[in-house]
Amino acid sequence: MTQFFSVADVDNLSQLVDEALQLKSNPFAAENLGKRKTLGLVFLNPSLRTRLSTQKAAIHLGMDVMVMNMDKEGWALETKDGVVMDGNTVEHIREAAAVMGQYCDILGLRSFPKLQDREEDYSEGLFRKFIDYCKVPVISLESATRHPLQSLTDLITIREYWQETIRPPKVVLAWAPHIKALPQAVPNSFAEWMCRAQAEGMVNFTIAHPKGYALAEEFTDGADLIHSLDEAIKGADFVYVKNWSSYEDYGKIHPVEGKWMIDSSRLALTNGAKVMHCLPVRRDLELASEVLDGPDALVIQEAGNRVWAAQAVLKRMLEQLQEK
Amino acid sequence: MTQFFSVADVDNLSQLVDEALQLKSNPFAAENLGKRKTLGLVFLNPSLRTRLSTQKAAIHLGMDVMVMNMDKEGWALETKDGVVMDGNTVEHIREAAAVMGQYCDILGLRSFPKLQDREEDYSEGLFRKFIDYCKVPVISLESATRHPLQSLTDLITIREYWQETIRPPKVVLAWAPHIKALPQAVPNSFAEWMCRAQAEGMVNFTIAHPKGYALAEEFTDGADLIHSLDEAIKGADFVYVKNWSSYEDYGKIHPVEGKWMIDSSRLALTNGAKVMHCLPVRRDLELASEVLDGPDALVIQEAGNRVWAAQAVLKRMLEQLQEK
Amino acid sequence: MTQFFSVADVDNLSQLVDEALQLKSNPFAAENLGKRKTLGLVFLNPSLRTRLSTQKAAIHLGMDVMVMNMDKEGWALETKDGVVMDGNTVEHIREAAAVMGQYCDILGLRSFPKLQDREEDYSEGLFRKFIDYCKVPVISLESATRHPLQSLTDLITIREYWQETIRPPKVVLAWAPHIKALPQAVPNSFAEWMCRAQAEGMVNFTIAHPKGYALAEEFTDGADLIHSLDEAIKGADFVYVKNWSSYEDYGKIHPVEGKWMIDSSRLALTNGAKVMHCLPVRRDLELASEVLDGPDALVIQEAGNRVWAAQAVLKRMLEQLQEK
Repeated sequence: MTQFFSVADVDNLSQLVDEALQLKSNPFAAENLGKRKTLGLVFLNPSLRTRLSTQKAAIHLGMDVMVMNMDKEGWALETKDGVVMDGNTVEHIREAAAVMGQYCDILGLRSFPKLQDREEDYSEGLFRKFIDYCKVPVISLESATRHPLQSLTDLITIREYWQETIRPPKVVLAWAPHIKALPQAVPNSFAEWMCRAQAEGMVNFTIAHPKGYALAEEFTDGADLIHSLDEAIKGADFVYVKNWSSYEDYGKIHPVEGKWMIDSSRLALTNGAKVMHCLPVRRDLELASEVLDGPDALVIQEAGNRVWAAQAVLKRMLEQLQEK
Repeated sequence: MTQFFSVADVDNLSQLVDEALQLKSNPFAAENLGKRKTLGLVFLNPSLRTRLSTQKAAIHLGMDVMVMNMDKEGWALETKDGVVMDGNTVEHIREAAAVMGQYCDILGLRSFPKLQDREEDYSEGLFRKFIDYCKVPVISLESATRHPLQSLTDLITIREYWQETIRPPKVVLAWAPHIKALPQAVPNSFAEWMCRAQAEGMVNFTIAHPKGYALAEEFTDGADLIHSLDEAIKGADFVYVKNWSSYEDYGKIHPVEGKWMIDSSRLALTNGAKVMHCLPVRRDLELASEVLDGPDALVIQEAGNRVWAAQAVLKRMLEQLQEK
Repeated sequence: MTQFFSVADVDNLSQLVDEALQLKSNPFAAENLGKRKTLGLVFLNPSLRTRLSTQKAAIHLGMDVMVMNMDKEGWALETKDGVVMDGNTVEHIREAAAVMGQYCDILGLRSFPKLQDREEDYSEGLFRKFIDYCKVPVISLESATRHPLQSLTDLITIREYWQETIRPPKVVLAWAPHIKALPQAVPNSFAEWMCRAQAEGMVNFTIAHPKGYALAEEFTDGADLIHSLDEAIKGADFVYVKNWSSYEDYGKIHPVEGKWMIDSSRLALTNGAKVMHCLPVRRDLELASEVLDGPDALVIQEAGNRVWAAQAVLKRMLEQLQEK
């Protein structure tokens, strides 16, 4: 594995999930694999879970970790080519990426979308340039349109909590309210991974969202798309709660009809569903406190599993570096 | 030891001080104790000494350290329960603490008071919630009302520089001027620890402050309280200089009568006292440069001892984790 | 070596360059030398290359590294003596340096000039005080007037890419345009190192800059000073591109006559010169994209060599610590 940017970078999904769960049961099994290797984590946007869990995963593998908060400790990067750099940007992504590739064996990058120009965000230009120029394996710590470490974590968590073998679980991605315009990266990515998992017989996948909040089709191929939350979550085994802004009217928030927040009474419509969220979650706006504090919430366990997702991916990358 | 928040968390004060001094003479004696254990240091406020010394202490014990500057690299945390989170706070302490507990074996937390609502600050709500929700041992890196690593350091330093066995040293906490309203955490904590040390025959303890600057009674039980600096420091063996804002008229600064800054001529009233300060110190405002640069100042040695205080506490916590 | 502040701190220039190149071919040759030693990197200004490369170098030597971004995570330091600290500065450099020296075996410090008072900047007061008060070996991560790790890197890179033994290469420091007033630290330091290298027969050194941009004489002793870029670069083997603000009219930018940016057609005047720049570089303002993206640019390799420069210096300091 030389990049981890989308589900397409994973050859065998089920195997990667299994490997992550094996690492969970034996975190230090490969503690010499990453010896003398350095992981650089580059953040153009803030991070809590992603930074700490990926750092922890690297430690388990014996790697050294260097964290670079470019937004706080660094300076503005230019991403466009053919621009005379006489403005606010101090360094071009071409040089910045290439230089960081000189110092690190594997790089992670986080970069949020600006939510102003859909084409620009969805081209993933910054991320692709970073991969091109740094010349080392790159792991996405969330890009403009995807958050694959979160999605792998989610699939790990679903497998961990679904022991039944007769049928795959019904998984519902449920849009939730918010006061800010959030990226589509987490729901895009979750949908992309669940559609792949569905194609491999691991889950049945439904998406519920208000009209005007459809995700880009490239991510939802094969999913049931429903505009009624109550109808969608009927019989659900897992409900994945997440807000996102409009893809159609790009980056905007529209007033929605009806109530979209999940509380205990609504949860009663499901098949005793476990409730997931990538965090941070705004209590009683996105999701009721009574659910978050109740026995069906998996959000903390899910966050804990971020370590094993990152560790499984880093392990693959290190193994490939070793083969060279 | 599963928490280090106040002197009440220490069973045997003298033993802990001895252990710290043993670690000082042999820093790497327990360098395998913390192997494969991760310390997470969470800062909601800036730190220099506390961060570096605690990180160094953890390194001596073989631990991995992850630092999270939530104020700079993260986002605003909600601490109140029952609030609809539709404002500026992005994540609730319930989730943030629980998640960090998933990634770390021991957590440290720094959180200053807001100095606006005394009841809120003195309830230590944020800190207690953090302890409750993270589910791992927590070491205070300074909370709203206490700074126990500093106080332990201070006691270590006093023992190190007081070799006489006939009588315990006279220790004076001396209020000093400042231009800003500072928390009472350091003086509260110093008083709390010195009162305990006095009860165990290790020191004689006096507090000198202008009228209107009395600390909360819960911290000063058994101390001599004097409103004249000159009278208080007579015969002192250690003078601990520190400013704090009013507890009574909470968080306010009152004009004070007379001069409260300690300089060389004033120091002549003592019994050749050593002068201490937790740092940072404002020269010639809180304390005269001539004292800081003279032979009686212990402030640098005191700061150096922060390592051994942190290491003694972390060692206790690691030993307890091992027993599990 | 107990300080690395200028070329004067290096006894044998050629030997240090050779040692760096040996480390490049065997990065972990001395991986136990820094065991149980801590490097503290203190930044009063942002850093990308310097921080990551020095951190990486320390890792290669087995050191632990603690990074302190005083500008972001800390507070304002007072550097003047005899000042009543009743303003914005929170801690004096005397205490801050001494305390950091308690926690670290070697310290690195970065501090840019303010470009307002030439005498103040060129006195290097802050840096010299830091060295005096911290009591441990100090490595400059760029000071007001010099950037010695960059200059050592540059000399390493020149040696690496100049295999000819019949004559030394012609090296030209070429002033380039910019929109901001930049420090003279990099060009001062480059000139200082190249003049020394020239004196030892390693290079022939020329400086090209517009009128009004002369560097301080103390740095340029023995260099050819030319005001025509085209004339200067004739026959050059290495062109080192860098902007700086005026030393004479201190910290100011003057309009310059003619074009000073190097592009491909201009490069044709040289002896197939390799092009260097310390980065970050503003494309098509300081240096043409076509050159940066072409086969003659060495900027990425040069940045990569920062690791070996830092490692050679740290190795010397560690060896000296060991002798004690």
